[in-house]
Amino acid sequence: MENSVVNPWEVKGEIDYNRLMKEFGITPMQSNFPKQFNDNLLFRRKIVYGNRDFDKILNAVKNKQKFVMMTGLMPSGKFHFGHAMVLQQVLLYQSLGAKLYITVADIEAYNTRNSNMDELREVALEEYLTNYIALGLKPKNCDFYFQSQRSKDGKKSNAYYALANEVARHVTFNEVKAIYGDITPGKLASALLQVSDMLHPQLKEFEGLVPVVVPVGSDQDPHLKLARDIMSRIKLYKFTTLSSTYHMFMPGLKGGKMSSSDPLSYVSLTDTPEEAELKIKKYAFSGGQDTIEKHRKLGGNPDIDVSYQWLRMFFESDDKKLKKVYDDYKSGKLLTGELKAILIEKVKLYLKEHQKKREKAKKELDKFVKI
Amino acid sequence: MENSVVNPWEVKGEIDYNRLMKEFGITPMQSNFPKQFNDNLLFRRKIVYGNRDFDKILNAVKNKQKFVMMTGLMPSGKFHFGHAMVLQQVLLYQSLGAKLYITVADIEAYNTRNSNMDELREVALEEYLTNYIALGLKPKNCDFYFQSQRSKDGKKSNAYYALANEVARHVTFNEVKAIYGDITPGKLASALLQVSDMLHPQLKEFEGLVPVVVPVGSDQDPHLKLARDIMSRIKLYKFTTLSSTYHMFMPGLKGGKMSSSDPLSYVSLTDTPEEAELKIKKYAFSGGQDTIEKHRKLGGNPDIDVSYQWLRMFFESDDKKLKKVYDDYKSGKLLTGELKAILIEKVKLYLKEHQKKREKAKKELDKFVKI
Repeated sequence: MENSVVNPWEVKGEIDYNRLMKEFGITPMQSNFPKQFNDNLLFRRKIVYGNRDFDKILNAVKNKQKFVMMTGLMPSGKFHFGHAMVLQQVLLYQSLGAKLYITVADIEAYNTRNSNMDELREVALEEYLTNYIALGLKPKNCDFYFQSQRSKDGKKSNAYYALANEVARHVTFNEVKAIYGDITPGKLASALLQVSDMLHPQLKEFEGLVPVVVPVGSDQDPHLKLARDIMSRIKLYKFTTLSSTYHMFMPGLKGGKMSSSDPLSYVSLTDTPEEAELKIKKYAFSGGQDTIEKHRKLGGNPDIDVSYQWLRMFFESDDKKLKKVYDDYKSGKLLTGELKAILIEKVKLYLKEHQKKREKAKKELDKFVKI
Repeated sequence: MENSVVNPWEVKGEIDYNRLMKEFGITPMQSNFPKQFNDNLLFRRKIVYGNRDFDKILNAVKNKQKFVMMTGLMPSGKFHFGHAMVLQQVLLYQSLGAKLYITVADIEAYNTRNSNMDELREVALEEYLTNYIALGLKPKNCDFYFQSQRSKDGKKSNAYYALANEVARHVTFNEVKAIYGDITPGKLASALLQVSDMLHPQLKEFEGLVPVVVPVGSDQDPHLKLARDIMSRIKLYKFTTLSSTYHMFMPGLKGGKMSSSDPLSYVSLTDTPEEAELKIKKYAFSGGQDTIEKHRKLGGNPDIDVSYQWLRMFFESDDKKLKKVYDDYKSGKLLTGELKAILIEKVKLYLKEHQKKREKAKKELDKFVKI
């Protein structure tokens, strides 16, 4: 962890999730879930490893009470399988009856990445939303919005932005520094707007007082901390909850995190099946031994093998089949090339089907974006 | 000036306007104005003493081009003659065909003064707007809004608030500190929102590229500086102007600045004529001598006499009559009691008439506030 950096604007180095939980004050995820959660491999396999106040959401589901799932997307680069994995949790909440709030963090992107607002909009729609729809996102009970264009309804926009400005009163620069380190005015403004993203569903102009859950990677936890600190100082929020879950990052092909700026670190959902095959064959980091002989004798290490991890996190939903791959690879029965072939077959099939769905999805954007 | 403080959140001590102009980099106001400006005592008597880029506004008036006057009000305490004086400049711009933008700085008040939003709204309407209307403000071409509720039209609200967030990218904390000294996140958020107040009239969702003039006291100049610095870094604003004028403060009864928290420092426009008379008799700081004999012999000092200054800044529009008062007081011919009597008569008459207008004005609020 010496060289690791985990904050909202940068993630690098090896990540020790147990240490992160301790450092950040995150609670480990429980093991026994209601069936709907257990059916989702992210929960069942503890890829969603930590939480804050998630019991409130489980209660709401159990008692069939209304709740909100809030998430944001940063429109940059290609939509890859790391994004697709995260969306599985969103789709689970939608299937459980949650109202979804999905914000395009275009103002954060503008303030922290020097971007062009028109380009940001295009990427958000053509890359992210189109793939979300193809993956199964439904327009019903889904409020998809841009930070720069909250709503056509002035009342709603006013309430959302006024909240971002008003929360500023409830925090000091020392707290901000303790949470984020030294930041720029642009980052502070976007952090405050993100607090509003998380808290505004509970305003009377929106859903009123209902539990809200925000699924994030631990890099985004500072925003949650800020939002929770501020909540504790505002009367309205004494009667409600902001929950969060923390998921692991799907590893990049070469190990480390997938990075939008390095196309060889990911497979995107618009890569052709052949491109995907080539990337995995050539770049996927292997936990195997140098030679077949050594591999047969010593076995491989599935825990650091990217192909295995991709199966575990996304492509192989059958626990028994996954266990067999794990055991066979560990024992040396399964060679690296054979493991990659299992993954490649699944990825190619997935891409073919997804890309057909994407074509249909393109025609459905207007069911989500009304501005 | 040693003990003087002049910033957006505090004004105290003696104010040397020439020194302020030098310190702040404000240009002294010219002497020759077109007739419409010269007819206004604030310009004719250099109570509006300084400016930045005001020639652009004079040009727009001369060429009958569209321009915007933007101003803000801080809803706190009673509406007094200091406020009424400032409004005269606003009314002049309205008479010249300007589109007016008047913002209630409720978010600034909330973030810097610990206030209640409902109370703020009430004070803004019952004290400020009602008096503005009674003083002659017309609803035509007047966009009166709350910072917390920009518009019923979501497009407009989105553009206004997004701008406040986006400008954050164009400034560093070092600059912010150089301009404001050490400030809180709440003050920073409201400063950025005020930059949007000043710049948003020129967005395509509002008036487009037209010159904007902001009449302020020099205490508000830091906001202008920040707005101008930021403008210089945004392409759109290369083709337009943000002008400002700087006016003197009408002195409080006891000298110094009028203060909402000290009712004996001002006459409010809802004081009864008798209250006003009593306050002036008892508290108005005098430039006269201790005894009648000394006053007759040495004369008084109108430049520090509050009653004279109130005549000069608001109540006596006739230059000849004002000069006679000045000369007579200076020579000792006019006694302090007599000078106060001249002012008291004018104030009482003004209040009687204004308070009738106020009753009518109460019924016209809905012509201005559409939210």
